[in-house]
Amino acid sequence: MIVNGKHYRTIWLKEGDHATVQVIDQPKLPHAFAIRDLRTVEDFRAAIQDMTIRGAGLIGATAGYGMYIAALTSPDKGYLKFIEESAATLAATRPTASNLAWAVNRQLGAIRACSTRAETVRAAFATANTIADEDAESCRRIGDYGKALIQAISARKHGETVHILTHCNAGWLAFVDYGSATAPIYAAFDAGVKVHVWVDETRPRNQGASLTAWELGQHGVPHDLIPDNAGGHLMQHGMVDLVITGTDRVTRNGDAANKIGTYLKAVAAKDNRIPFYVALPSSTFDFDRVDGVTSIPIEERDADEVRFITGKTADGRIEAVQICPDSTPARNWGFDVTPARLITRLICERGVCDATEASILSLFPEKRL
Amino acid sequence: MIVNGKHYRTIWLKEGDHATVQVIDQPKLPHAFAIRDLRTVEDFRAAIQDMTIRGAGLIGATAGYGMYIAALTSPDKGYLKFIEESAATLAATRPTASNLAWAVNRQLGAIRACSTRAETVRAAFATANTIADEDAESCRRIGDYGKALIQAISARKHGETVHILTHCNAGWLAFVDYGSATAPIYAAFDAGVKVHVWVDETRPRNQGASLTAWELGQHGVPHDLIPDNAGGHLMQHGMVDLVITGTDRVTRNGDAANKIGTYLKAVAAKDNRIPFYVALPSSTFDFDRVDGVTSIPIEERDADEVRFITGKTADGRIEAVQICPDSTPARNWGFDVTPARLITRLICERGVCDATEASILSLFPEKRL
Repeated sequence: MIVNGKHYRTIWLKEGDHATVQVIDQPKLPHAFAIRDLRTVEDFRAAIQDMTIRGAGLIGATAGYGMYIAALTSPDKGYLKFIEESAATLAATRPTASNLAWAVNRQLGAIRACSTRAETVRAAFATANTIADEDAESCRRIGDYGKALIQAISARKHGETVHILTHCNAGWLAFVDYGSATAPIYAAFDAGVKVHVWVDETRPRNQGASLTAWELGQHGVPHDLIPDNAGGHLMQHGMVDLVITGTDRVTRNGDAANKIGTYLKAVAAKDNRIPFYVALPSSTFDFDRVDGVTSIPIEERDADEVRFITGKTADGRIEAVQICPDSTPARNWGFDVTPARLITRLICERGVCDATEASILSLFPEKRL
Repeated sequence: MIVNGKHYRTIWLKEGDHATVQVIDQPKLPHAFAIRDLRTVEDFRAAIQDMTIRGAGLIGATAGYGMYIAALTSPDKGYLKFIEESAATLAATRPTASNLAWAVNRQLGAIRACSTRAETVRAAFATANTIADEDAESCRRIGDYGKALIQAISARKHGETVHILTHCNAGWLAFVDYGSATAPIYAAFDAGVKVHVWVDETRPRNQGASLTAWELGQHGVPHDLIPDNAGGHLMQHGMVDLVITGTDRVTRNGDAANKIGTYLKAVAAKDNRIPFYVALPSSTFDFDRVDGVTSIPIEERDADEVRFITGKTADGRIEAVQICPDSTPARNWGFDVTPARLITRLICERGVCDATEASILSLFPEKRL
């Protein structure tokens, strides 16, 4: 997508230097746009672990390029051992990120099919690019399918602005390009549909305020930042035409885990008969799980993410401020689960389906039991 | 209630100086406990508008004392004109606050019954004290009625901890004493019922994190601060036994305006069959209005309340930090309306009733048409 008028992906090879991978240094957003060079396996390990890069799709693509750099920087003698050790190092950075292990294993498969180091480097290079391109292409197709939904609402409103509410950041920053929840918005905007986005701040980590608002602003998509508390009021007053969120995991029956607070928007959307869409690449489906509310484990995070907020001071420093009394305890669950009954449709790169097992399996016939 | 072991109300006449009204400087909480002197109508206007004092009951009591100060500082010649202009100034500060207009009009009634300036000052003084005392007594009685509801849940749970979720600050800081939503909690806690409170942070102004958490901590009531996004997840997992909020205005049919985000908790409580109580003094009823969602005006506040968050830095300074890009626009509605159908019961100083016109009027027979 666009940053300062120039097209970017979230990860790319440095121009004229195929020994350097570049990524956007995301923790510095939105207050600074910085590029970080990754030249060694250690650079990749650190970038994934310190969350310089984050988001399921981008973690997978970064692991893919990390394996290419492992091949490129491997010694002539014992190159395969070096690559396999690097694979273990990368896979250990974020043990719960399923795209990470998936990308590392895909690279190992490609690498083990080679018979020379030079061939290995070429194969790892091609596979890294393919993983990134496939991620971008999935998101582009999600955008195409979702665009049609937005266009239909626009037509019903006789071309008046379509107001879309989103929660957290399921934007291009979490993928290689386009994003999941944002892909339909960018596609509709680029096609000339009048859209406006309500950006939920997304406490406690403020991914909406810091990432989604930044993305949309850079691309020129009209938007307003709102507190997470505001969405219900907007829905009651006809100021939201549809909700689109991303998701971290969708069960076989269509329950969707996503950033804490998503369920509150879904139940309010239902109460106001507003369509609630969840956008996701196929890799986010968990076909082995049925009841999401009772079975998806919800991570509890550091209470200080609630007690402190980080931002930019008047003189430009980045500082954390404490918002409660010194002695106040806090709790901090990272996600909640939106039951399938509250989800209007799921949008993925294979098409749009209902949040029911039968409808999901119509897009994924190979997953029928 | 108790601050550092000493009993306070939120507004009082300075000891030995009946020309000075003192209030707790609430924006300085929770990081400092400071007292602010109010000596002129302009002091009162500023204190209400900049939210030094806030909350339905306290706004009413402050308007009452503001009218007394208007009388006290009025010129001999044209004192009634000065008082009436002051009334208009005070009434214009917070358009959604029904207690404000109510207190101003009550004072105007008392004042217009007087025939001299001296008599007017005495009447305004007495009326201001009466408004404050009535507010405290109303809240004490709300506490008594609400305590019985909490005790019933405690009994059903065989004495296990009762988990109560509250939004914003409808604590004693929002009234003269006890609070509305908190009065039942303090009363139950003081009676030995095991209670635990989930304190919604309440973005964008964080009244939960800064005021409710502070109040409960000062009184020793067990509690945890949570992001506004967390309540739905807690309800889905059986971790909330009841919700109690305050309200800024309840219509004849039982619709309740309250801090933005309240509606989201109410609709989630309904979805999880959790009782949702609204606590209020009688003065908060607006018997002239029927449909709250369409008819209650909702104030829109400064967008910078969303774009910046104020807190305490590591070295103890109070600082505002910006949480979004420089160019990000924001919108900031102060309240939303919870439809009566989502409210289990209303708790007021006359008793507990359903959120229906018939049930409300059974407590307020004088309001029958």
